[in-house]
Amino acid sequence: MEPVFPFSLTLPVRGDGTVMHALHRQLRSAILDGRLPADSPLPATRQAAAALGVARNTVIAAYDLLIAEGYALPRRAAKAVVADVAARRPAKPQPLAQNFRDPRLNANLRKPFLGPTAPADLPERSFRVGVPEHRYFPHDVWRRLSAQSLRVWAKKGFGYPPSEGVAELRDAIAQHVAFARAVACTRDDVVVTSGAQQAFDLLARLLVTPGKTRVAVEEPGYPPLRAAFAAAGARLVPLPVDDEGLRVDRLPRDVRVISVTPSHQSPTGVALSLRRRAALLEFARKHDATIIEDDYDGEFRFGARPLDALQTLDREARVFYVGTFSKSLFPSLRTGFVVAPRWAREALIGVKQCADSHCDAAAQSALAAFMRDGHLVRHVRRMQPIYAARRKTLLEGLRRDLGRWLQPIPSEAGLHLAARIRDPQRAADIIAKAKRYAPGVQSIAEYSLAPLEQPGLSFGYGVIDADDIPAMLSRLRRALER
Amino acid sequence: MEPVFPFSLTLPVRGDGTVMHALHRQLRSAILDGRLPADSPLPATRQAAAALGVARNTVIAAYDLLIAEGYALPRRAAKAVVADVAARRPAKPQPLAQNFRDPRLNANLRKPFLGPTAPADLPERSFRVGVPEHRYFPHDVWRRLSAQSLRVWAKKGFGYPPSEGVAELRDAIAQHVAFARAVACTRDDVVVTSGAQQAFDLLARLLVTPGKTRVAVEEPGYPPLRAAFAAAGARLVPLPVDDEGLRVDRLPRDVRVISVTPSHQSPTGVALSLRRRAALLEFARKHDATIIEDDYDGEFRFGARPLDALQTLDREARVFYVGTFSKSLFPSLRTGFVVAPRWAREALIGVKQCADSHCDAAAQSALAAFMRDGHLVRHVRRMQPIYAARRKTLLEGLRRDLGRWLQPIPSEAGLHLAARIRDPQRAADIIAKAKRYAPGVQSIAEYSLAPLEQPGLSFGYGVIDADDIPAMLSRLRRALER
Repeated sequence: MEPVFPFSLTLPVRGDGTVMHALHRQLRSAILDGRLPADSPLPATRQAAAALGVARNTVIAAYDLLIAEGYALPRRAAKAVVADVAARRPAKPQPLAQNFRDPRLNANLRKPFLGPTAPADLPERSFRVGVPEHRYFPHDVWRRLSAQSLRVWAKKGFGYPPSEGVAELRDAIAQHVAFARAVACTRDDVVVTSGAQQAFDLLARLLVTPGKTRVAVEEPGYPPLRAAFAAAGARLVPLPVDDEGLRVDRLPRDVRVISVTPSHQSPTGVALSLRRRAALLEFARKHDATIIEDDYDGEFRFGARPLDALQTLDREARVFYVGTFSKSLFPSLRTGFVVAPRWAREALIGVKQCADSHCDAAAQSALAAFMRDGHLVRHVRRMQPIYAARRKTLLEGLRRDLGRWLQPIPSEAGLHLAARIRDPQRAADIIAKAKRYAPGVQSIAEYSLAPLEQPGLSFGYGVIDADDIPAMLSRLRRALER
Repeated sequence: MEPVFPFSLTLPVRGDGTVMHALHRQLRSAILDGRLPADSPLPATRQAAAALGVARNTVIAAYDLLIAEGYALPRRAAKAVVADVAARRPAKPQPLAQNFRDPRLNANLRKPFLGPTAPADLPERSFRVGVPEHRYFPHDVWRRLSAQSLRVWAKKGFGYPPSEGVAELRDAIAQHVAFARAVACTRDDVVVTSGAQQAFDLLARLLVTPGKTRVAVEEPGYPPLRAAFAAAGARLVPLPVDDEGLRVDRLPRDVRVISVTPSHQSPTGVALSLRRRAALLEFARKHDATIIEDDYDGEFRFGARPLDALQTLDREARVFYVGTFSKSLFPSLRTGFVVAPRWAREALIGVKQCADSHCDAAAQSALAAFMRDGHLVRHVRRMQPIYAARRKTLLEGLRRDLGRWLQPIPSEAGLHLAARIRDPQRAADIIAKAKRYAPGVQSIAEYSLAPLEQPGLSFGYGVIDADDIPAMLSRLRRALER
């Protein structure tokens, strides 16, 4: 028997309209990409139904939908024909990508160095850095609150929510950071952003006079933040990091913005010591500088009482505190925030308006309800011992199996742990083997602008089980012993 | 009887844990804002239960939750006391807002002129411009697909979705614009953005060399687009608009980027004529310029066949086509897109990465499913006659009641209709009365940089019923006759 369609179709077996929709979709695709050419008649419904093993009414309904949408044209007393969709899609000569150096592009544009990306073949469970655990997340609660929020928004009428974020979410964030991090603020100090990355980008545009403003960044440090400041025309000043965090004593006087990860330095994991915190605030006071405090994974703490946030210690409204829910909840939520000093608030909201008007309103309300009902606190509390156990196993394994090559860097927070490579001469070999036998591991060099004196590795424990860690580390040990 | 709490509490009557959560939330707020001071004992559970008329176990459970979260401290054989949360929130002297001129801010920063905002007391049903109808939106379908999408994402594990957008949504967008607007593209040409505003902002950063690149904008034109280009350091060249759209003949040779709303000029509503389209593409070819085609509400058409999109006519990959779902679906969804020429694709994705990494992944999947299942096409088709009826009634009313003062500007698409004020001398009075008696109406002058020769008004019909239009227009007539 001659096939009725010049391509194969895959249809489900259920009879609740799913078959009709599947047929409709596949025919529409075929029309759009030219497999069913313009003006060709659609196969007779009876033959098509027989060939596909579906009811004739199903085929009729799918054809009707195609006609209603203009993909096919009805013909009186004849078969419907395919509409001339293909003719409306002219072939277009497309020059190849010229990357970032095309003369039509912004001459200051540089390919942003956004840091290491996870290899495509990385297994789901690995030492991947920067991704939290999804297995224990209360997905059902999240789904219920999202639906609830959409139900409320459905009744409200469409409109443009405030650029700074919906009030209920700013309230919830203010309470959360006040309680969890002793960051003193009210909803009026909070601006909701599309993840921490947008916070960095908005702050760069807010604080950097292109070509002029010098901005201190940690070296090694978080590449996407550097990329945002570089894109804004900042003159970057990389400052080294030691076991007490950022070398504040190395700050040149003309630095106007200082970006720092005091809770858990990215990537080394060290905490900025209390005396360095005081020195940093004193520098800012003396030189009229502002500080960006990036607290990206400080919710997860494994030591004693955390050191006070810079925002908490600051008496002069010099600190922009940036937080995110990418680690405490999940990254694709894309929700972060800035607690901004009052003097910069109006301008920051103006920059946000320019950038993308506002964040999705229903998603903000859902997150507000999630926090208000205590689910964030509960989730963080639930994950705390799970991450703590992984961290402990990892630390023990690093000492037991890999102590000859690696020295763990003291750290009391976050979702990754870094270790220095004892013999820099062997760094290349150790990094290559670590990447092979402990997939997901990152080289600290991937976070730095210049070659590092102290090479190291960073192990994430967001998506690896404690039980799997020892075997992976001893596999790496055997490889290094070879 | 002495009140047990120094403030009033409002509790629901149901007994399924809601009471406990309500009590817990209100106590937590009281602790955070100091109404329950640090170290003060929590009232005895028995008295509190009696005073509030709830079960004692409810009070015990609420206290336990406070203790578990650290808001209260257990005391052996005594009442729990309030934790020292208040002490962790130091009072902070906050200088007043310095707006956009603080020396610590980017010296090039200007307060962005983002155009007219709707007054806070605007009734829900009005001539408001730029907001679509929510009453006929398939909220239930949207909710179902959102939940479905979250269910799929819950199984996938957390991660960072691609900056250019998830593949299924880029596929759906490519099919949609190919079919609806004959814009030739595949998923590889589409970059998903956080609304059209982010598209403008990313394109400004992509194409403008600060202080150098001259960018032609429509005058009058859409202020938020101008704001994004101004923020990126563009030298704006306002070009007048007449009944054939942008005055292409007035383009200075050194303009490198031209931004235009060819389907439905914002705000006048005119369409760019075919010969102007050809002239614009010819200008771009001759002077190596690029074009930004903003097709913000072109889905809704009331005339004959629409003119081809610039992107469709373009044979040299000079057009960036910007679309949005803010009008065809709803604004707070925050989803727009750019169909970009290949030579600029990699750089555009780089700018998006810098700006905010990516858009919310689950929301993108939900929108993709909504489009794939035909709901977007169906919704647009459903709204078409509704908007058409409103537009017809509005046009008739403008001619019948207001013809002495206003002359409607020919227009065949979109969700608003503009009219010229016949006697510019009376413009101020007419605009004031229109704003009072036809709330939501905007003055075209609010879209322009310089005083306009031809003042006018813009009437939105997204959130007004056809039946209500005649009464409002005759009310305005009576006011103008006075």
